[in-house]
Amino acid sequence: MIKQLIEKIETKDSPIVVGLDPQLKFIPERILNIGFEQFGETLAGVAEAIFLFNKEIIDNVYDLIPAVKPQSAMYEQFGSAGVKAFERTVSYAKEKGLVVIGDIKRGDIGSTSEAYAIGHLGSITIKNKTFKPFDEDFITVNPYLGSDGINPFTKVCNSHNKGMFVLVKTSNPSSGEFQDRLIDGKPLYVHVAEKVASWGEECMDGDYSNIGAVVGATYPEIGKELRKIMPNNYILVPGYGAQGGKGADLVNFFNKDGLGAIINSSRGIIAAWQQEKYSEFGEDNFADASRKAVVDMLDDVRGALAK
Amino acid sequence: MIKQLIEKIETKDSPIVVGLDPQLKFIPERILNIGFEQFGETLAGVAEAIFLFNKEIIDNVYDLIPAVKPQSAMYEQFGSAGVKAFERTVSYAKEKGLVVIGDIKRGDIGSTSEAYAIGHLGSITIKNKTFKPFDEDFITVNPYLGSDGINPFTKVCNSHNKGMFVLVKTSNPSSGEFQDRLIDGKPLYVHVAEKVASWGEECMDGDYSNIGAVVGATYPEIGKELRKIMPNNYILVPGYGAQGGKGADLVNFFNKDGLGAIINSSRGIIAAWQQEKYSEFGEDNFADASRKAVVDMLDDVRGALAK
Repeated sequence: MIKQLIEKIETKDSPIVVGLDPQLKFIPERILNIGFEQFGETLAGVAEAIFLFNKEIIDNVYDLIPAVKPQSAMYEQFGSAGVKAFERTVSYAKEKGLVVIGDIKRGDIGSTSEAYAIGHLGSITIKNKTFKPFDEDFITVNPYLGSDGINPFTKVCNSHNKGMFVLVKTSNPSSGEFQDRLIDGKPLYVHVAEKVASWGEECMDGDYSNIGAVVGATYPEIGKELRKIMPNNYILVPGYGAQGGKGADLVNFFNKDGLGAIINSSRGIIAAWQQEKYSEFGEDNFADASRKAVVDMLDDVRGALAK
Repeated sequence: MIKQLIEKIETKDSPIVVGLDPQLKFIPERILNIGFEQFGETLAGVAEAIFLFNKEIIDNVYDLIPAVKPQSAMYEQFGSAGVKAFERTVSYAKEKGLVVIGDIKRGDIGSTSEAYAIGHLGSITIKNKTFKPFDEDFITVNPYLGSDGINPFTKVCNSHNKGMFVLVKTSNPSSGEFQDRLIDGKPLYVHVAEKVASWGEECMDGDYSNIGAVVGATYPEIGKELRKIMPNNYILVPGYGAQGGKGADLVNFFNKDGLGAIINSSRGIIAAWQQEKYSEFGEDNFADASRKAVVDMLDDVRGALAK
């Protein structure tokens, strides 16, 4: 699957991913009203609006980007109706030729991890028919439970040609509370990165592994260090834009082949219409504002990488 | 919320929780067929069967136990239809007076953690109406992202009288890969436990905190150590039964007041009908087998605590 992602990144010259993290306050009135008319002023009504909001953004940016990353929490906040909108979003993005990274940060053990792997990346057979429940292409995984939490995902990645990104160093201010603590002279995130490199060997797909890592854009120096420890693992980089990461900081996350990283922006793209900078588009043309924000982000990222 | 849980534990003399972790292979033919007749041999058909399976178990054991713990993965494996069954299970268990611990092991940052907290423990207002999406009473949370991942949950726990259990030392064999590594001479799980004790102070509800910890039954010596570090935090103890934890091992997780821990069993209860020991009940009476397994577990746990 990483091969497919790289191919799309190269074809579109676009090492970025748009985070589809809808919040109620991002959704224009006209979209909300469509959902409300159909399902009332309910969770189901908002869920419908969320799908339509995503759809309009996807329709306006899909030719510029290789992948989208829906964040599970933003759908779960609307209950099972929201999760249904997540499912529809994954499916629609794939129809438009996009790779889908499900940002679900799951992590459990044994048969439980296996169930997550089946639900999000794999398939399940009922009587004689096989179903692919959520069918993302990649997911994000939490490493706190160790190899028992990773191996069931690896198995499904190998059988279904899928991938995952393991949390190594997250973009938030308090990520250091545990992740930066020294163990045998090295921060915990280095130990996790070493495991990612070794887990990744079981999951190679061309020059890169289907097992990658999450490292926040807000820690570019750590990115540089981790880039070396995981030479064959793709790095998914959140924290660009709204969280403070800048284009110039991103170079550290890439390999010399110009590959190895994919930069995420969520609010900066999907809620662009609410920014002063894109106010000319207006609420009705929110998806055009998103397109312009993608173009601007690509300029910034390409510019930084060209230096 | 921990006060309500303790009250139910004391009234029923029952410091146990039944894990509602349905797998396709646990569900009797007659239940599956009801789902298939209604929704075809589809994910929706299985999801219906899962709800009916849970309902029959709840109906047969609710008077013996204070709480149930549905495991999100086992529902997500059937896509959004499965998540709908999770939602219905939570709601039905609460109708029967049970406390519901959503075993979701979520963990993210900022507005994302906030969305998980809203979706699973809190409420959301659409126009002038307030909805409680999943409305569990407690959830489980992963601490890898530090305080930024915990604080949004704490806020919702305080505003909605809910609670959470933070993963400290998990029951699986490889949990030591990261959790046991020494930081300043103490294992990572001790550092996490110290944080749980301190986070918990912001969330007291009587003698105990609404923030508890998850510590596996398979590590009773560690349980003893952690019990002292977190005197006011409830410990949710998985790993009893199928994973190898025994009644005698459990004493370490309790305080001298006889409180402070709640022991989970999942497969051992809900798939009891498939065990040699309970084969007399037969497939049709699977929920009676579950009831007998709960009675046996209570004997074992009460016996161990009486010593």
